[in-house]
Amino acid sequence: MERNLQRLAARMAGLGVALRPHLKTCKSVEVAQCMMVSRAGPATVSTLREAEEFAAAGVRDMTYAVGISPHKLDRVIALRAQGVDLSVILDSFEQAEAVAARSRAYGLPIPALIEIDADGHRAGVRPGAPELLRAIGELLASRGAELRGVLTHAGASYHAHGASALEQAAEGERAAAVAAAAVLRSAGLPCPVVSVGSTPTAHFARHLEGVTEVRAGVYAFFDLVMAGLGVCGLDDIALSVLATVIGHQPNQNGGWTLTDAGWMALSRDRGTAAQAVDQGYGLVCDLAGQPLGELIVGEASQEHGVLVPRPGSVAPAPPLPLGARVRILPNHACATAAQFDRYHVLNGTPAVEALWPRFNGW
Amino acid sequence: MERNLQRLAARMAGLGVALRPHLKTCKSVEVAQCMMVSRAGPATVSTLREAEEFAAAGVRDMTYAVGISPHKLDRVIALRAQGVDLSVILDSFEQAEAVAARSRAYGLPIPALIEIDADGHRAGVRPGAPELLRAIGELLASRGAELRGVLTHAGASYHAHGASALEQAAEGERAAAVAAAAVLRSAGLPCPVVSVGSTPTAHFARHLEGVTEVRAGVYAFFDLVMAGLGVCGLDDIALSVLATVIGHQPNQNGGWTLTDAGWMALSRDRGTAAQAVDQGYGLVCDLAGQPLGELIVGEASQEHGVLVPRPGSVAPAPPLPLGARVRILPNHACATAAQFDRYHVLNGTPAVEALWPRFNGW
Repeated sequence: MERNLQRLAARMAGLGVALRPHLKTCKSVEVAQCMMVSRAGPATVSTLREAEEFAAAGVRDMTYAVGISPHKLDRVIALRAQGVDLSVILDSFEQAEAVAARSRAYGLPIPALIEIDADGHRAGVRPGAPELLRAIGELLASRGAELRGVLTHAGASYHAHGASALEQAAEGERAAAVAAAAVLRSAGLPCPVVSVGSTPTAHFARHLEGVTEVRAGVYAFFDLVMAGLGVCGLDDIALSVLATVIGHQPNQNGGWTLTDAGWMALSRDRGTAAQAVDQGYGLVCDLAGQPLGELIVGEASQEHGVLVPRPGSVAPAPPLPLGARVRILPNHACATAAQFDRYHVLNGTPAVEALWPRFNGW
Repeated sequence: MERNLQRLAARMAGLGVALRPHLKTCKSVEVAQCMMVSRAGPATVSTLREAEEFAAAGVRDMTYAVGISPHKLDRVIALRAQGVDLSVILDSFEQAEAVAARSRAYGLPIPALIEIDADGHRAGVRPGAPELLRAIGELLASRGAELRGVLTHAGASYHAHGASALEQAAEGERAAAVAAAAVLRSAGLPCPVVSVGSTPTAHFARHLEGVTEVRAGVYAFFDLVMAGLGVCGLDDIALSVLATVIGHQPNQNGGWTLTDAGWMALSRDRGTAAQAVDQGYGLVCDLAGQPLGELIVGEASQEHGVLVPRPGSVAPAPPLPLGARVRILPNHACATAAQFDRYHVLNGTPAVEALWPRFNGW
C-alpha cells in the first residue's frame, strides 16, 4: 500500500497537480491518513457518512463527489458549520436552485462543483451543452451559493483496454473538464477548481494541463480489475481475504477445494468477468501473496468458496489440505473491503501489526 | 415478513417436521425472534459470529451449517461450555478426527452432523459413497464425539425452473438425506436428526417422510430471485432499499434516472441475470412497494444506481423528479441486507416503527 501511495503521489507531483484521494475505497481513518497529504485533507468522499466520520477525525477539506440531493443539504451545512470545507457536486438547474436556496437560508454560500459527463458513463452535464453549464454556473454564482469549479470522472476508463486506450480516456477526461472550465470563465464566471480522476486515468494521463486536482481511490489497494487493465501488477495488490480450506470434492470437474470465504467475504463483484483473464471471485495465493498456480475462486455461495484451476490453465494446483490457509486477491477492492469492519495490517511478516477499523453506511 | 413466516410455519406443521430457521439472511436478534418457535431456538447459522451473537441473545440450540475447520473448534467449545447446544457439520474423515480429538480433549462430545451432497452443488459426502459415510459415522460415534445425524442442502434448487422441477429438487434432497440416515442406522449407528432445507425446496416439498427438520432462511424476506423461481410473489418481498433520485440523463438510451443507491446499497448480486426476467440490480417501486412500470436498476456503480425501463418493456416509466423517493426490491435479500447495519421496520404506514440492528462478520 505504501508503495502504491508513493507511486501516485510522485506521478501527480511530476504532472504538477494536487491529489485529492478518494476515501470511498478504504473508509478507514488510518488508511486515509496514509493517503492524504495532511491530516486535514484534501480528500474526496462518496457518502455523507464518510464526510462525517473523516470530519470527526480532523479532515477539513472534502468534496462529496456524488450528485447532491436537496434533502442532504442540512447534513452538508452541519459539517460546514463545524469548519469543514465540504463541497458538493451537481449537474442540473434544479440542484443548483436547491443549493442556492439553502445557502441563502443558511446565510453562507455552499460551494458546488458542476459535474461534467466526459464519456457518457454516468452523471454530468454533456460537454455539448454549454448553455446549461453557463446557466447552472450563473445561478450558483449569483444566487447565494459558491461556484467552486468543475469535476469529471472517466468511469468508462474501467473498461478501456491497453495503455493507449487508457491514455486516450485520460486525455478525454482532462479535455472535457478543461473545456467546461473555459465555458464558465468565458462567461465571466469563476472556476478555481478543475477536478478529474479515476485510478486508471490518474496512472495513464500524459499531461494534465489546465487541471488543478486529481481524484483516485482504489490505487491504495489495487485489485484484479486494475491488474487486468494493466494499471498495476499482481504484486501491487495490497488487499486480500484470508480463507481456510474446509473440504474437498475431488470428483467434481477439475477437483474442488472448498474454503470458508464465499461472497459474504469476497463480495459478489465479478469485475474481471469482462476482462481477458476472468479471475472468478478472486485469485488464490499463499500466505505470502504468491499465486498458487492458476487457482481461482470459481464459484461462491454465502460462506463457501469453490477453488478450481482457471479454465484452460495448465499450471498444477498444489494440494491444499483441510485447514490450509490461503489469501484471495479480490476483483474489486472497494466491494471486498466493504464486507469487513476492520483491516488486519501486515508488514512483511505473518504477524498482524495492527487492526484498523473501517465503517460503511450512509 | 410476518405473512411469510406464518406461511412456512404452517406448511412445516402440515408436513409434520420441525423448522430450524436459518439466521444468515437476517443476522438480527429481533428478526430471529420472529422466525424461531421460541427465544431459545432452534436455529441454523452460517458463521460462528452469528452463533455467538444469537447465543448472547438467549438462543440455546443452533447448527453451524458450514463445514467445520479444526481451528474453529475452540469457539464451538466455548459456546457449548456456556450451555449452548451448538452442533457442527462435516463431510470428511479428517474433520471427524479433529472433532473427535477436540471432544476428547474437552471431555464432552461435540455433536456433528454428516453433510450429504444431494445434488453435486457444493459440499457433502456423495450418496454413492456409503463406506465413507459409515466410516465417518463410526469415528464420530466411537471416538468421543456425538453423531447427531445427517444434513443436506439442495443448493441447485436455486436454479430449478417451475413447480415440477422444484418438487423434484425437494424430493431429491429428502431422498438423499433419508438414504444417508438409513446407511448409518443399518450400521447400528445413531441418526436422530435428518435435516434438509433451502427456501425453494421447503416451499415445494410434497412430503417429508423420514425428515426431522427443515432449514430455510431467505423466506423471511424473499427477493426477486425467489419471485423469479415462483416461490413467492413480488408482493411477498419484505425487504427493500430506499433510494433518492439525484439526477437524469434524458439523452441516454431509454432515458436514465440516477439514484443514490448503487451496489454499495444493493450489493453486486445479479441473481436474476440467469432467470427469465432479468431485474438488473433491482426492481424499482413506489414507497408503498408497487412496481413503477417496468423500471429496474439497469446499472450500478458504488453510490449510483441507473434506473432504466427493462429492455423490451412497453410500460411507460413514470417521471421521477429530483429528490423523489423510490424503493428497490433486491435480487438477493441475504446479499442486500448485508450491506446495512440496521433494518428500518415498517408496518403498513410510511412511519418507521423501529430500528432493528443487524451485524456481519465472522
